[in-house]
Amino acid sequence: MKVAKFGGSSVADANMLKKVANIIVSDPKRKFIVVSAPGKRNKEDIKVTDLFIELGNNFASGKPIEDAKTNILVRFQTMLENLKLSTELLDEIDESINQVLHNDSLKTNRLDSLKAMGEDTLAKVLSLYLQSLGYDASYVNPKEAGILVSDQPGDAQVLEESYDRLFELNDREGILVIPGFFGYTPDGALMTFPRGGSDITGSIVAAGVKAELYENFTDVDSVYCVNPNIVSNPREIKVLTYKEMRELSYAGFSVFHDEALIPAFKAKIPVCIKNTNNPNQPGTMIVSEREVDPNTPVMGIASDAGFLSIYVSKYLMNREIGFGKNLLQILVDEGISFEHAPSGIDDMSVIIRENQLPIEKEKVVIERIQNELKVDTVTIERGLAMIMLVGEKMNSTPGVASKATTAFENANVNIVMINQGSSEVSMMFGIKEKGLEPAVQSLYEIFFQNLN
Amino acid sequence: MKVAKFGGSSVADANMLKKVANIIVSDPKRKFIVVSAPGKRNKEDIKVTDLFIELGNNFASGKPIEDAKTNILVRFQTMLENLKLSTELLDEIDESINQVLHNDSLKTNRLDSLKAMGEDTLAKVLSLYLQSLGYDASYVNPKEAGILVSDQPGDAQVLEESYDRLFELNDREGILVIPGFFGYTPDGALMTFPRGGSDITGSIVAAGVKAELYENFTDVDSVYCVNPNIVSNPREIKVLTYKEMRELSYAGFSVFHDEALIPAFKAKIPVCIKNTNNPNQPGTMIVSEREVDPNTPVMGIASDAGFLSIYVSKYLMNREIGFGKNLLQILVDEGISFEHAPSGIDDMSVIIRENQLPIEKEKVVIERIQNELKVDTVTIERGLAMIMLVGEKMNSTPGVASKATTAFENANVNIVMINQGSSEVSMMFGIKEKGLEPAVQSLYEIFFQNLN
Repeated sequence: MKVAKFGGSSVADANMLKKVANIIVSDPKRKFIVVSAPGKRNKEDIKVTDLFIELGNNFASGKPIEDAKTNILVRFQTMLENLKLSTELLDEIDESINQVLHNDSLKTNRLDSLKAMGEDTLAKVLSLYLQSLGYDASYVNPKEAGILVSDQPGDAQVLEESYDRLFELNDREGILVIPGFFGYTPDGALMTFPRGGSDITGSIVAAGVKAELYENFTDVDSVYCVNPNIVSNPREIKVLTYKEMRELSYAGFSVFHDEALIPAFKAKIPVCIKNTNNPNQPGTMIVSEREVDPNTPVMGIASDAGFLSIYVSKYLMNREIGFGKNLLQILVDEGISFEHAPSGIDDMSVIIRENQLPIEKEKVVIERIQNELKVDTVTIERGLAMIMLVGEKMNSTPGVASKATTAFENANVNIVMINQGSSEVSMMFGIKEKGLEPAVQSLYEIFFQNLN
Repeated sequence: MKVAKFGGSSVADANMLKKVANIIVSDPKRKFIVVSAPGKRNKEDIKVTDLFIELGNNFASGKPIEDAKTNILVRFQTMLENLKLSTELLDEIDESINQVLHNDSLKTNRLDSLKAMGEDTLAKVLSLYLQSLGYDASYVNPKEAGILVSDQPGDAQVLEESYDRLFELNDREGILVIPGFFGYTPDGALMTFPRGGSDITGSIVAAGVKAELYENFTDVDSVYCVNPNIVSNPREIKVLTYKEMRELSYAGFSVFHDEALIPAFKAKIPVCIKNTNNPNQPGTMIVSEREVDPNTPVMGIASDAGFLSIYVSKYLMNREIGFGKNLLQILVDEGISFEHAPSGIDDMSVIIRENQLPIEKEKVVIERIQNELKVDTVTIERGLAMIMLVGEKMNSTPGVASKATTAFENANVNIVMINQGSSEVSMMFGIKEKGLEPAVQSLYEIFFQNLN
């Protein structure tokens, strides 16, 4: 059986829910359905979860809540009416909101409960709609499903015992619609996952029920092998491994939160990215291992600008035990997270996202490096971009580095940094930002064009 | 004026001293002469300093010292006789030894004083020989010269005030012969530099007198651009910068101890490596800056085998603040010094010399990494070699990476690691050991052949 998760844009209004229902019923294996709260219907719209948060904040600060509550109820009323469903559910929503706001004996954090209501309500709506179409469908609350989590509001971690409980869902008949984003502590208190948590729920359910496939329905056809803003009509990626996806996510390729996939990753459940608006396209599969064609060692090119490097040199640096570690410690102390730290004999660089080191902070960091490490030089170079070539087994395929450096040469882009070998599945190049587009286009040409 | 330093092999016997004297007098600018103790005259021989150490150890452990003393006296007697000098000096040596052994009121560590006697005596011999040839030459004791050092036996550091004192030597007439290897604390106690310390003395004197050149006479014609055991008749390097020399020294190119050069480096004194047995060859100049010919961005290829890599991967590694630093800390704790630590998104490698991580230690390190860092994988790959391309401004010369990777491809050697950009003057490649010679030969061909 399959788990199908639908994100916020996929369940934003009645129209989308009709598409969702069509997708579900078109494949009898789509038994376990995980849903987000309704997202934005258009650019100026507000996500339903944000409406609930606004209501909770107003209440907490003593402001009136009627408008916020009305906005919420109208959203769902419109949805129910357009789906030709009874509006009884609205009373239930109203009552739940009142309970959460006024019942201090509830174990749960008030704001968490409100945040979870968007998903919870939408799951009920979808379940009712499927029933209205004549299908055996039920809403299943996460507590009933067995999604047990740790006691950390907004950052709950799933507990191991959930998986056996979830497996029992296989015994239930019909389509099961489960709201994403929250679980319950063993004590029975509601806890939300980090934002974007419907992905986590979907992943947990997929692992628990031992699904044959976890379909993640979103608003793109597939993952592309290169940024479509840089190369038009790029090839779609049919299959990639979890590792490859992580390397590509470096550049924001990820259509979901990486942590979300951990349960599916550990249970080796294959994941498929699909487009709710184009569900018959095959989408992109994410698996734990795949066959690699030695003719196409590179399966994706990720790129991003906005990096800087801190270059440090000191005569006899490599004789100082712990120098590298001490430099990194200074950065950790100053709350700066770094991407890479290639080191040489008497020098090393640290590659950092520019937003980690605003100009105001530069002085402090440079001074600490000079005073504590007694370096000969320390210089900061901003305006760098990183390009990552990705592909399993790239490390053992001869000729990739050669082809890649040729591509840079063809584009007349100087390579400032090469980092290959730290990863088995990627090779990283640093360049000045202005060379980003020509370099990526040139790499695409050399690795992807003229392939079948 | 110039400082000329002669190493142990250059002053091993009377024959060599004659060559040394010829070299000195052939250039009137060679005013400041720094000498080591006589080295081995042949493979089975013993260095004079080792004879003094043997004498000191015998005395300390209550063993008889007559043989050791005789060996020393005979060495210098042979030398004096072959130089046709009076053997009066032998009584002075004998008396000094007795003084050091029996006078407990001497401030100096006994063993240090003995160790220094080789250089000290040889300096006197050379001075007497130059005088016998009719030249104005004097022996200058380091205390008189003003070489003041810290109170750390065997690891003395030069004190800043030495330089002004040394500059005054410019006012003295004639050739000044100064023994290397030791100085005096401000209190007047003798202190030796670390082993190979005549290089340090030479460097300090050069900086102090503000020499126009510091000539380091040894037993090679020059520094070669590649290991002559891998490429026969390689090009000689005419000029290199301090930075380039450090990068090449990675592979044992250094003909002297790197720390020794620090005073000359700081004072920007040019250094010239020359061969005592072939003094008219230009040798190799080491300078702080040089003109770079863009047609020859690579000036040297250093290589060495005997490396291993520790490869570590963990899903979402780059989200963990301080992961890299923590891994390095484990190595520092275990007393393992590492060469490089290239890191990727979800993985990183640490390149280490194999002798840093003997098989017995592997288990402990792997366990610590697994237990403390909770990684997904940790693997150790032995039998790696590193190849370093060296050249100032290599980083900003397009096409070098491309040419280099082509060379590896031509030699059919797979590149396991590339580290470029951490250093401005070098680019590093990791390969399996068996590919070392073919790769180096291929790189030499592509970067050095067909040049004028």
